Amino acid sequence: MKKNRIYNFNPGPAALPLPVLEEIQGSFLNYAGSGMSITEISHRSKLFDAVVADAAARTRRLLNLSENFHVVFLQGGASLQFSMVPMNFLPDGKTADYVNTGTWSTKAVKEAALLGKSVNVIASSEDKNFSYIPTTLAVNKDAAYVHITSNNTIKGTQWQTFPDAGRVPIIADMSSDFMSRPFEAAPFGLIYAGAQKNIGPAGVCLAIIRDDMLARIPEKLPTMLSYKTFVSTNSMYNTPPCFAVYTVQLVLKWLEETVGGLADMEALNRKKAKILYDILDRNDFYRGTAQPASRSLMNVTFRLPSEELEKTFVAEAARNDLEGLKGHRSVGGCRASLYNAVSLTAVEALADFMKSFEVKNG
Amino acid sequence: MKKNRIYNFNPGPAALPLPVLEEIQGSFLNYAGSGMSITEISHRSKLFDAVVADAAARTRRLLNLSENFHVVFLQGGASLQFSMVPMNFLPDGKTADYVNTGTWSTKAVKEAALLGKSVNVIASSEDKNFSYIPTTLAVNKDAAYVHITSNNTIKGTQWQTFPDAGRVPIIADMSSDFMSRPFEAAPFGLIYAGAQKNIGPAGVCLAIIRDDMLARIPEKLPTMLSYKTFVSTNSMYNTPPCFAVYTVQLVLKWLEETVGGLADMEALNRKKAKILYDILDRNDFYRGTAQPASRSLMNVTFRLPSEELEKTFVAEAARNDLEGLKGHRSVGGCRASLYNAVSLTAVEALADFMKSFEVKNG
Repeated sequence: MKKNRIYNFNPGPAALPLPVLEEIQGSFLNYAGSGMSITEISHRSKLFDAVVADAAARTRRLLNLSENFHVVFLQGGASLQFSMVPMNFLPDGKTADYVNTGTWSTKAVKEAALLGKSVNVIASSEDKNFSYIPTTLAVNKDAAYVHITSNNTIKGTQWQTFPDAGRVPIIADMSSDFMSRPFEAAPFGLIYAGAQKNIGPAGVCLAIIRDDMLARIPEKLPTMLSYKTFVSTNSMYNTPPCFAVYTVQLVLKWLEETVGGLADMEALNRKKAKILYDILDRNDFYRGTAQPASRSLMNVTFRLPSEELEKTFVAEAARNDLEGLKGHRSVGGCRASLYNAVSLTAVEALADFMKSFEVKNG
Repeated sequence: MKKNRIYNFNPGPAALPLPVLEEIQGSFLNYAGSGMSITEISHRSKLFDAVVADAAARTRRLLNLSENFHVVFLQGGASLQFSMVPMNFLPDGKTADYVNTGTWSTKAVKEAALLGKSVNVIASSEDKNFSYIPTTLAVNKDAAYVHITSNNTIKGTQWQTFPDAGRVPIIADMSSDFMSRPFEAAPFGLIYAGAQKNIGPAGVCLAIIRDDMLARIPEKLPTMLSYKTFVSTNSMYNTPPCFAVYTVQLVLKWLEETVGGLADMEALNRKKAKILYDILDRNDFYRGTAQPASRSLMNVTFRLPSEELEKTFVAEAARNDLEGLKGHRSVGGCRASLYNAVSLTAVEALADFMKSFEVKNG
């Protein structure tokens, strides 16, 4: 039983900014003087309208989105997006290009194929166990879209710059690095991100849809599976996941007003990641699993000399209030997830622990 | 700005039990001695496994479910269920029977038809503005299922007893009266309920699936739209809406341990509803809109002598800390929602207000 808060390196759900948690806690019985909890107010109330509007407005400002983008809040996580994307944007007779950079991309491909859609994997890093991001891509000019996964939590890789797809819209699963750095949104037809890494709790998926994409959506989709439903109702066709949207609003407020925006956030994220990668690069005790040119700022994956030592490392770290360092169950090893809300102090504490663990066990 | 908590008659999201809100608030920065918020722990952790297992076990005990039922947690609300139900259980060549008792049933029918499925509306109360529940039903022996809406929030009607469908599985949208009274689950092939009325916050939909229904589900559904996915992974195929599931767990704990179970809950709900219906039946100032034999224990819908007076009523009630009494935007009038967490004290306060409002304006 921990008396105090620990350092949280969980891969998602993950650390949230302490001021956000404190604000939620402080007003949990009486939100904004309503006499009700945020979980008890109507989604049709002015109070909740303001929450959704503010979350969307902050998304626009943080990413410098032009008027032709819509911001919506969905449910079902990125996993449901893997199906909604081809249902909405891949008509019969067309093919979509996918880049396969790991588990999540593989699932996106699988779900599109399951719908009987025509999918073309134009690049893959499976040949080297997904340890890198392919740099040369040939997007087909006639592709309905090209789908990428911006950051790969399990293998610890991340697109350093986004590919040139010409006039083909890029569709990106940005679940695990959304709002961690600025980027140019113009080439993206759709961006989606499960909240539970960088922008909130599990239970809401933020999507950004370019206006011209709406015309491509078929009429006869199930209402809850058409992006048009969410755009035309301002994410209020049915009851949205209110608490999760509210938390996203507060996290984006923190990002804008306390951190100072995405350029400052990226600088801090680079600093945090560098501390750990420098340790991995010093000698062979800790070995990074991602190729250096493809390394993720969000998920630092590494191995120790033996699985035995990895187990000891994770357990001893936990006893030292450093939580969530076990690698994904599909690959083993260790992983430190350094999302936005993981502080420099937390990373420095982990670095100190890693060094002393190496001295004891190296 | 309210300094204290008010009486909340919202139709959903709705009132939650105060002890539940206080427990969430108290441990919000450090859940169960983890040093993390419930919103920050891994969904693959033992701590969260215990949350899901406990929520499911309490559901089983409260409803006295036999072994052949599965309890799962979904996203997308009842609205996504309107599509998932026919996708999973209505194969080509078969027809499903639907009973249309209002807005939500109508949407369920519409979504099934949108998928190109064969739907047969075997009974409807549309002829009298959905003010009653049809009592004579002829379920087709060959129907894939018969779909009902157990309680109709907008029109204030509720099935008093469930229909005899023979061997045809009943599929019920119980969003707005789930866990408000005991019932025999055996005839139900599937029960689903958006949490935001009786069992939690918005953002999670609980479903109970009878084991024999699983064999009917087609193989090639999108993974996130097949009930089999949720049953086979214990609702953990992807990251579930953790905070919402956790709140459901606490509400069910309150229901089981503080209220004492569903028989006691129903007795209290009957007492609460009677207080208001007795006022509606005294004279013509307040006029109930649902036929007496079909009246809902959850949503008491009524009109006043004029729309002007209804506006005054709702506004003056709000000034007296009685919130959420406006009727649904599609029908107007007034509505008091008396879900499980609405206390007898709250209902008595509303009754007192109604009487004094009548004296002043009658």
